Amino acid sequence: MDITSIINKKRMGKELTKDEIKVFIGKYTKDEISEAQASALLSYIYVEGMTEREIVDLTIEMANSGDVIDLSQISNYIVDKHSTGGVGDKATLILMPIIASLGLPVAKISSRGLGISGGTIDKLESIPGFNTEITIDEFKKNIKNIGVSIINQTLNLAPAESKIYKLRNEIGCKDSVPIIAASLMSLKLATGSNKIVFDITCGRGTYIKTKEEAKKLSRILKRLGVLLNKEVTSVITLMDEPLGYSIGHILEIKETLECLQGRMTQDVGDVIVSLGRAILELATNSKDKVKNEKTILEAISSGRAYEKFKEMVKAQYGSMEFIDNPDKFPVAEKIVPLYSSNEGFVESIDADMVGSIARFLGAGRMNSDSEIDRTAGIVLQKKIGDSVKNGDILAYIHTDNDSKISGASQNLLQAFTFSNRPVAYKSRVLAII
Amino acid sequence: MDITSIINKKRMGKELTKDEIKVFIGKYTKDEISEAQASALLSYIYVEGMTEREIVDLTIEMANSGDVIDLSQISNYIVDKHSTGGVGDKATLILMPIIASLGLPVAKISSRGLGISGGTIDKLESIPGFNTEITIDEFKKNIKNIGVSIINQTLNLAPAESKIYKLRNEIGCKDSVPIIAASLMSLKLATGSNKIVFDITCGRGTYIKTKEEAKKLSRILKRLGVLLNKEVTSVITLMDEPLGYSIGHILEIKETLECLQGRMTQDVGDVIVSLGRAILELATNSKDKVKNEKTILEAISSGRAYEKFKEMVKAQYGSMEFIDNPDKFPVAEKIVPLYSSNEGFVESIDADMVGSIARFLGAGRMNSDSEIDRTAGIVLQKKIGDSVKNGDILAYIHTDNDSKISGASQNLLQAFTFSNRPVAYKSRVLAII
Repeated sequence: MDITSIINKKRMGKELTKDEIKVFIGKYTKDEISEAQASALLSYIYVEGMTEREIVDLTIEMANSGDVIDLSQISNYIVDKHSTGGVGDKATLILMPIIASLGLPVAKISSRGLGISGGTIDKLESIPGFNTEITIDEFKKNIKNIGVSIINQTLNLAPAESKIYKLRNEIGCKDSVPIIAASLMSLKLATGSNKIVFDITCGRGTYIKTKEEAKKLSRILKRLGVLLNKEVTSVITLMDEPLGYSIGHILEIKETLECLQGRMTQDVGDVIVSLGRAILELATNSKDKVKNEKTILEAISSGRAYEKFKEMVKAQYGSMEFIDNPDKFPVAEKIVPLYSSNEGFVESIDADMVGSIARFLGAGRMNSDSEIDRTAGIVLQKKIGDSVKNGDILAYIHTDNDSKISGASQNLLQAFTFSNRPVAYKSRVLAII
Repeated sequence: MDITSIINKKRMGKELTKDEIKVFIGKYTKDEISEAQASALLSYIYVEGMTEREIVDLTIEMANSGDVIDLSQISNYIVDKHSTGGVGDKATLILMPIIASLGLPVAKISSRGLGISGGTIDKLESIPGFNTEITIDEFKKNIKNIGVSIINQTLNLAPAESKIYKLRNEIGCKDSVPIIAASLMSLKLATGSNKIVFDITCGRGTYIKTKEEAKKLSRILKRLGVLLNKEVTSVITLMDEPLGYSIGHILEIKETLECLQGRMTQDVGDVIVSLGRAILELATNSKDKVKNEKTILEAISSGRAYEKFKEMVKAQYGSMEFIDNPDKFPVAEKIVPLYSSNEGFVESIDADMVGSIARFLGAGRMNSDSEIDRTAGIVLQKKIGDSVKNGDILAYIHTDNDSKISGASQNLLQAFTFSNRPVAYKSRVLAII
């Protein structure tokens, strides 16, 4: 079976057979298909779509392209919370310990960020010593002993997914719904979780732009769950404004520590409670919303979630010195305030622009070989709805690079719009599917 | 300007600006755009097409991606005859010396074959010593002194076209009309020819499958000619059956020598006369079909075309020993007859199948690094319309590889179909545009 005939078949809008998908994934994993050929096939999949059957086969082949972890001996239910990501998205970091502190085992596979949004792995590695490349045995041991662990996908877990993820980023094909769906589910198959809550972000600060696309993806994920014997819930959240106030690696770890100690912005709280409730519903069969919400909030207020986070850091060799005293984290050489020349109420903060500026400052990768500046980023002082006076500080820019300050400041001002009238808070949670 | 935004724009079916096309070609030539990115863009161009304006800009940028040869001091009109190729297509080899022998200067740029059809360059290099990588100065000198020269595109001529040509082959995107048109015309811009006759082959033995597609391409080439100040005629020829009787490198050179000495199959004669007439009409403004046809035939019967071929071989360092005595060319170790078990008249000979078998025998590249076996190939003993008795020899298979004979024979038999009734000769020339 020739790869060009498979490419041509999809170009003509035809359904690929299980064998054709197997050949594509098998050969691509072994570098027997060139990047150019894989790129052409993905491009036609983008245009022509895939049937449910094709997506299931793609998911299975990607999952089986590497090691598959069996967690069935640890527990009957293994929770995974996965976000499609966004600017300032630290929800996974906060939720993992919350859920684990409730006695529900959490197995998390994650990857480095490629685009404007740094990945969860990158953020955790900002804690000195934190090792995300532990062995699968250690990963299992941690889940068993402390109820939570996270590993980097650089291990031989769904390597085909990893290659396709990088390629999608390279060719601007991040928002293909069938490929996202297969990609997300293949990781869940590979890590053995079976109670999965997806945070499907949509809006300016992520690659899924509309609620309709997010719903489409959520429905496919639900259906894949049925076909692949996983329980799946998707929470669709709006990512027009950055989540919380920090954008950048160390900055987000610090905000995570704040949140786990009960100090969080309304939008973060909103997202955490909704996602947490969805996880409890899946994992405990309790449908009592009020009780579940209370359970999540108590995990935080009791300090148990924070303690669990510390256990997780310790188990993965992170230095406790920085967790106990976040002021010890390195900071950028320059911390420059951005002053408002407007009056009124913040109406919007364009997450896409903020993300691009953070990346420009060094907080994201420009390409897959780029080094990340872990201290760089932006700390918002105003969120949507906040009242602003002329001269108020809207945000701080964190950077080591003097020459970037002026450009970043000018652009960051453009990311804010203001209204003369008060702007009401709107929940970021758009739908639960 | 980010390449992913250019890719996304074309994916959405929008027209690319001149600057966007310039950025794509400029960066791709310098390897600043990855093969995967170029592949995605070509794939979306395949699906979404290009406007006339985009094709013109793509043509100009590809031509200007390397050296541009100025032949205006040699003559006001420089002829180029270019075929989109096919199985057994030796028309260019025969026509170049015919036209040059009539005093019309011929400048030919060509490339190695990538697919089933070996390139003209590959075929000429089967003549020991023949150098297709002469300098541009020598190329010009030859055109001035003997009226004809051919160079390989591996020189810095339209390097972007060369890269795109290879990529198209790799990703199964050979039949995109806008890209073929831009590709063909960019070579003409780069070599400075201005009277161009395209042989647009269509049918089973080439990558343009239908007459309609061939017409579409021909019309675009005509229009590009007007916009780029070149006189262009396209002759659409049918490539369902291999052209002539030989398929393979040395085998086709030998057939070329036969043809130039007046011994040619009806289909080759048909194509040569039609293409030759079209060239004379463009280059001499003479519209007298009968006279032009006579001129072409006399160039052959007088021996002048054959002499010109020998001059060309000599000027490019080819050994005359083999030309004067073609029996000295190396031959395959095994020459195996294929017997007919049918009676009747040959109704069709599937050029695509014949080409694939020739390639399997070693006469074509399986990929761009493959070595060609110059002696391998097929020599047909029967053409469409010929009567066949049980036990007649349909073809000879030439190969050094014993193990390939059985498979090749079985498949080659499948390429023939037979009729009980006589099959009339149909001209291979379908249209002149």
